[in-house]
Amino acid sequence: MDARALQIGLAGFGNVGAGVYLNLVRNGDLVAARCGCRLEVRRIAVRDVNRVRAVDPPAALVTADWRELAADPEIDVIVELMGGVSEAYDLVKAALEAGRIVVTGNKALLAERGRELFALARERGVPLLFEAAVAGGIPIIKAIQESLVGNRIESIYGIVNGTCNYILTRMQEAGIAYAEALEEAQRLGYAEADPALDVSGWDAGHKAILLGSLVSGAWVDPGSVVVEGIEHIAAADIGYAERLGYAVKLLAVIRRKGEAGLLEVRVQPSLVPSQHMLAAVHGVFNAVLVRGDVVGDALFYGSGAGRDPTSSAVISDLGEACRAKRGVIQTALINPAEEAALLPVDESFSHYYLRLNVDNLPGVLARVAALLGDHGAGITTVLQPETEGDSAELVMVLGDAPYGSIRRALREIAELDCTRETPVLLRLEPLETRATA
Amino acid sequence: MDARALQIGLAGFGNVGAGVYLNLVRNGDLVAARCGCRLEVRRIAVRDVNRVRAVDPPAALVTADWRELAADPEIDVIVELMGGVSEAYDLVKAALEAGRIVVTGNKALLAERGRELFALARERGVPLLFEAAVAGGIPIIKAIQESLVGNRIESIYGIVNGTCNYILTRMQEAGIAYAEALEEAQRLGYAEADPALDVSGWDAGHKAILLGSLVSGAWVDPGSVVVEGIEHIAAADIGYAERLGYAVKLLAVIRRKGEAGLLEVRVQPSLVPSQHMLAAVHGVFNAVLVRGDVVGDALFYGSGAGRDPTSSAVISDLGEACRAKRGVIQTALINPAEEAALLPVDESFSHYYLRLNVDNLPGVLARVAALLGDHGAGITTVLQPETEGDSAELVMVLGDAPYGSIRRALREIAELDCTRETPVLLRLEPLETRATA
Repeated sequence: MDARALQIGLAGFGNVGAGVYLNLVRNGDLVAARCGCRLEVRRIAVRDVNRVRAVDPPAALVTADWRELAADPEIDVIVELMGGVSEAYDLVKAALEAGRIVVTGNKALLAERGRELFALARERGVPLLFEAAVAGGIPIIKAIQESLVGNRIESIYGIVNGTCNYILTRMQEAGIAYAEALEEAQRLGYAEADPALDVSGWDAGHKAILLGSLVSGAWVDPGSVVVEGIEHIAAADIGYAERLGYAVKLLAVIRRKGEAGLLEVRVQPSLVPSQHMLAAVHGVFNAVLVRGDVVGDALFYGSGAGRDPTSSAVISDLGEACRAKRGVIQTALINPAEEAALLPVDESFSHYYLRLNVDNLPGVLARVAALLGDHGAGITTVLQPETEGDSAELVMVLGDAPYGSIRRALREIAELDCTRETPVLLRLEPLETRATA
Repeated sequence: MDARALQIGLAGFGNVGAGVYLNLVRNGDLVAARCGCRLEVRRIAVRDVNRVRAVDPPAALVTADWRELAADPEIDVIVELMGGVSEAYDLVKAALEAGRIVVTGNKALLAERGRELFALARERGVPLLFEAAVAGGIPIIKAIQESLVGNRIESIYGIVNGTCNYILTRMQEAGIAYAEALEEAQRLGYAEADPALDVSGWDAGHKAILLGSLVSGAWVDPGSVVVEGIEHIAAADIGYAERLGYAVKLLAVIRRKGEAGLLEVRVQPSLVPSQHMLAAVHGVFNAVLVRGDVVGDALFYGSGAGRDPTSSAVISDLGEACRAKRGVIQTALINPAEEAALLPVDESFSHYYLRLNVDNLPGVLARVAALLGDHGAGITTVLQPETEGDSAELVMVLGDAPYGSIRRALREIAELDCTRETPVLLRLEPLETRATA
């Protein structure tokens, strides 16, 4: 066996399972270089080998029996992405008993049976990793367990269900009713045909149980957690909240008053101030606001679900599995023997903000615009210049162009007889949000 | 030697050094339980042993000679928080050569001499950890190296200098000039007496060099990085930007077009859309927006400087050092043998949003208010009720009170003869931002 390869048994080839496979193929060399260890999918267990899929797993790797994964002594790590609780429980249990590292994104499984499974993992000394189980691509589990290891966590406020957040966002943006927003979410694939698990708040509830357990270091009993969904939220409430200066969010709240205080764990629709960053979390995005006694407030934001973001979290755990297998520590992923090939700044693109102080005369804007055009720079907006006697401010936004061209244009503008002060040029980054699969 | 203790040599007992020491004392048991290893400060090197300090280090641990730390065979890890480049370089070099793990928050040192130091660390197989060097308490180094290990990083947009962000925020909020905002920042301790390193953009530049090196996996030459500060930003520019729908931020930009493209690394004042989360990063807070090809957009937000947030990052690296020393992997920090003691939801406090549909008659609000008062709930805001024939909506915000009291009040309100529909109650979380030292 190659100690520098991690042999993976992948259980489940649905959306996320296929995503993990595809992303491991796509970025395999990169991940191998970073982990010092190749991540090799050795076996894939699917429920129905004859099902037609968007992505076909390599036939030679496929089995219909997940038990083969737990039994295969060559497999180092089992990635459980089957969903459901019953069979997934049997697989994870068998895997841990066989001493195999387990990676899972199954929050229902962990919330319902985690107490037994974590106990088994401890007893056997085998890692049970679950970054993908909470907030998808947001690395909140590692952040709490490792990055904030020196903190007592005082509170967590999390938007951890993208379906609910999409519905609430649309109700606010479009002023539509819950039923209409839900239908829209279903049409776009953001809500299941049976949306109960999400809109009841229980998917967020499962995540709250895991976060609460991490914060307290002890197990949070699911039976004691209060979970309320968003089905009863009326468009009127969203509107009133907005008039009062708030947005309505489904919040998972984990909170403790003082060191000895009891732990509060609940999921309820809640108003948050419109100015707060949590109110700026729109659509299917998730965010987790953590308050530690040392670090203060920290917020983690990203895609909470979807094939690729969840794959990113699973692959992070596979990196941990590599370290566990090899018993090594991560050193800086910088190879100082190589020098990065940098883009000359004049070739870098962005939009621009430009302010000129010019003679307050007709024709000046035309001259400036012509000169910019000669250098391939287009004006997308001009602000009404404010005139002051015989001088005028000219403020404009320029479209995407290389910095070098803009600088050349600027030098020429500075030399125009109608230019009174040194022009002010700032970068403008439109920062469109990238959609993920 | 106790394999379950990590012996620390702390070099530097300024603001951050003292913070690390104090937080290790305060949360020592917690950190030991989580890391499976006690973090013991064995020796503290200070420049001037006679200096009067806000916090005194234990005299028995103090030495004036940092060379003692590198030479002491009992020390596992050197925490370099001396600042400056020359002596810090000598210490880190000596420590790595002696096979000691190094933790540093010194971005200037790493940006200027990192190429040699990372090479030495690789050669000796010793971890050189630097979470505290970029964005203070925000765990961005671990996020990029471990959590996003499966991603090609396509871009990073970072607000990584709190001093500049404070000045720009105040210029925008208060409409004041750069000089006035800088003076205010200095008065509040957010800017140094000599602010050059911050306002020139070079502190952010050091961080951009480290982030760029992590993204590319190769070394970014500081000489090739374009760095521009905020000294030339006029109040007028901030105002125009706002009118155009943007906020001005000092952005560290790391970006690559395609796999083979050259890497762009630069620090420049830039306009970002007012609706974007980066525009909502106010005051001394930092934020880093990372786009990965698998995870999509992820944003990390928190305190970028200060004694405690930076200590949090140093202690995170000390946790890594424990794992490096013991060669073990982190398992879930949940002890399933214990059950978390949960707060009954009726005892949990928050503010509330309440909507009633009542008879459109005089005196109804008074009856409701009296009833809420009986249960200890105060009304902080009432929205002008919208009347519809003989019924009226009554929307109010209630101050901090236990959920149980509010629910009891609500049951009684529901039974009033003037109440027409089931009242709607939602939580309201004010989410004040916590200041950190």
